[in-house]
Amino acid sequence: MTPLGAPPGPGTGDGSRRGSPSGWGAGADAEVLARVEWSRIAEPGDPVAARIVGDLGPVEALRAVREGAAEGVGRFLPRLGGVDPGRVLEITARCGALVLTPGDTYWPQGLDDLAAPPFCLYVRGEPRSLAHVQRVGVAVVGARASSSYGESMAVELAAGLAQAGFTVVSGAAYGIDAAAHQGALSVGHPTVAVLAGGVERPYPTRNADLINRIAAEGAVVSEVPPGSAPTRTRFLQRNRLIATMTAGTVVVEAGLRSGSLNTARTAADHLRPVGVVPGPVTSPTSAGCHQACREGFAVLVTEVAEVVELVGGYGVAAVPRPRGQSRPDDDLDPICRAVYAALPVRRPVGAAALAGHAGVAVPDVVASLGRLEAVGLAEHSDPGWRKTPVTAPAG
Amino acid sequence: MTPLGAPPGPGTGDGSRRGSPSGWGAGADAEVLARVEWSRIAEPGDPVAARIVGDLGPVEALRAVREGAAEGVGRFLPRLGGVDPGRVLEITARCGALVLTPGDTYWPQGLDDLAAPPFCLYVRGEPRSLAHVQRVGVAVVGARASSSYGESMAVELAAGLAQAGFTVVSGAAYGIDAAAHQGALSVGHPTVAVLAGGVERPYPTRNADLINRIAAEGAVVSEVPPGSAPTRTRFLQRNRLIATMTAGTVVVEAGLRSGSLNTARTAADHLRPVGVVPGPVTSPTSAGCHQACREGFAVLVTEVAEVVELVGGYGVAAVPRPRGQSRPDDDLDPICRAVYAALPVRRPVGAAALAGHAGVAVPDVVASLGRLEAVGLAEHSDPGWRKTPVTAPAG
Repeated sequence: MTPLGAPPGPGTGDGSRRGSPSGWGAGADAEVLARVEWSRIAEPGDPVAARIVGDLGPVEALRAVREGAAEGVGRFLPRLGGVDPGRVLEITARCGALVLTPGDTYWPQGLDDLAAPPFCLYVRGEPRSLAHVQRVGVAVVGARASSSYGESMAVELAAGLAQAGFTVVSGAAYGIDAAAHQGALSVGHPTVAVLAGGVERPYPTRNADLINRIAAEGAVVSEVPPGSAPTRTRFLQRNRLIATMTAGTVVVEAGLRSGSLNTARTAADHLRPVGVVPGPVTSPTSAGCHQACREGFAVLVTEVAEVVELVGGYGVAAVPRPRGQSRPDDDLDPICRAVYAALPVRRPVGAAALAGHAGVAVPDVVASLGRLEAVGLAEHSDPGWRKTPVTAPAG
Repeated sequence: MTPLGAPPGPGTGDGSRRGSPSGWGAGADAEVLARVEWSRIAEPGDPVAARIVGDLGPVEALRAVREGAAEGVGRFLPRLGGVDPGRVLEITARCGALVLTPGDTYWPQGLDDLAAPPFCLYVRGEPRSLAHVQRVGVAVVGARASSSYGESMAVELAAGLAQAGFTVVSGAAYGIDAAAHQGALSVGHPTVAVLAGGVERPYPTRNADLINRIAAEGAVVSEVPPGSAPTRTRFLQRNRLIATMTAGTVVVEAGLRSGSLNTARTAADHLRPVGVVPGPVTSPTSAGCHQACREGFAVLVTEVAEVVELVGGYGVAAVPRPRGQSRPDDDLDPICRAVYAALPVRRPVGAAALAGHAGVAVPDVVASLGRLEAVGLAEHSDPGWRKTPVTAPAG
């Protein structure tokens, strides 16, 4: 991690910055500067850029672009050198943001699973919010056009996950995303918003207050430099960051074309567990969730414990199965249960009559009555037996 | 199938009765009479009765009970010989009912998969409604304490299944069961109700009108003789008939202790596909459906086509996946899509500016513009290019 605008190098006194490669400006690390330049000249997720940066490293890859020394790099030339990367760093610092690069202490290691990982991350807020996000981060995402049911589910799940020690990651969009962030903030926990445009421009603008609060209490993250507009392509690529920096993804509501299904598929493709919250069949904003479950890349989740289990990787069987209320005859063997069912509530009957009633042999009836009496379910009352009244003390 | 109360033997002129073993009364088939006696002396699902009847046949098995010649048959003695089976047949006929025994033309062959199949079925109404029910029958079941959402889903699915040629089978209980029967009847199709007590006593009594209508237009079925009370044990055993006589089971709504989950588990245990309709997490009557899906013995179903596919055994992939509305740029390659996204709506721009905007090399921009123009998405307009206005004729 590299502090921006602050005096570079050691001695900032901030332990969180120890992972930093070094400062910049005059002494800025060439690799950091090259990564910043790549984040400016290549669109997020560009496979050619990812390949040559992976093969040559960011500095040599830039040289290859300049010299036309690699296949297919012509696409990067129109933007190359347009803004000095040192200037980008200054602007970033002025926004109160930092740059993280792979290997930094708080770099979300899950991103390294991507075929085209981000070259760097611009982080506005507290980068510590990204600590261990690949293990304790849960993406809670969903439709912009959400229902009040979906929003209340998002708030409830996010609040519960935050209280259980998980970091809620989302996209700060209207609807489910916003509700998820709000749920985490409502219980006093930081949350992480990943934006498609620059971290200094809250988008959507009507969520500016929320996004500024996330930056103040958690972190707002982007892979494109300040000043970049959120485009449709960048939204889709942004989703791959949310999907892979976290331990798992929960889709609370999604229409059939919702971008959050794209996030969910990316998560599943990268072997992250995916949960979907069911809803009424009559609600189009749940149709995508149901489809994901039917297609088998997501499991239903209905409460916080099930999400915890999902992202903890413990498998479905680990959550105690919810049970309905128990009945008095739950634990009886079949013959006792038949005798119990045949017992009258008021007027007592004899064992022989019970045998005919229950379809059980007389000796078995007698034995069963003994057992039922012992557990307080039957009582002897001349001239025979009946159920113990529920108001009477049992036993 | 054996007509009751009618002159026995051939010559009834009713082709539907051709599968009958023969008549009874004076000439009643000894096996039919023995099966009727078994249906009276053994509780539904009794494993001992099933075993000795399976081993010895119903007639010899009765003799073994009388002579105490088999293990564990004492339980049948209290009821043995209480009512003459010929008399049971007369009573059955007086209720307008018939008896079916295994091998009869309309005997639901799926029942033969049970470890303890019914000894016979009492059928009030048209036994033809049971024709091919093991192939075209769909159990549509659910909670008594249903929501209006669940009831409307049950009506909709049952009506759609009936119109698609399926026979809706259910248990005539309050709530989802009743709604399922009503859905089938509403589109003029017969439906089958399986009762826990005798077919002559509509239970629950508030559903008497519905049950009588099912008998008039379809069939009301039970494995216990007329006069038998519906007990809790018989309800659970009744569920195994619904689960196995059909090609598959759909649970529309179910609480965590709902008997319909018992039906669903029995269906799954007997390798029948099970579908569950999702609902809001906040609705306790959907909790059992969600649990069944999480436990993996049921798949989500949200519409008739998905149920048809489920019980038809064609697998999830056979239903055309519902898609949201398509977008103009759905089928473009990534470079064309980036250029399209960068194209202004009004004021045209040149290829070089687009290259910087889209992050695409100039030659690729030019090629993409040609393709976009060809499919009607871009238009040349001095001094450059822009998106084709959506109101203009495409191409």
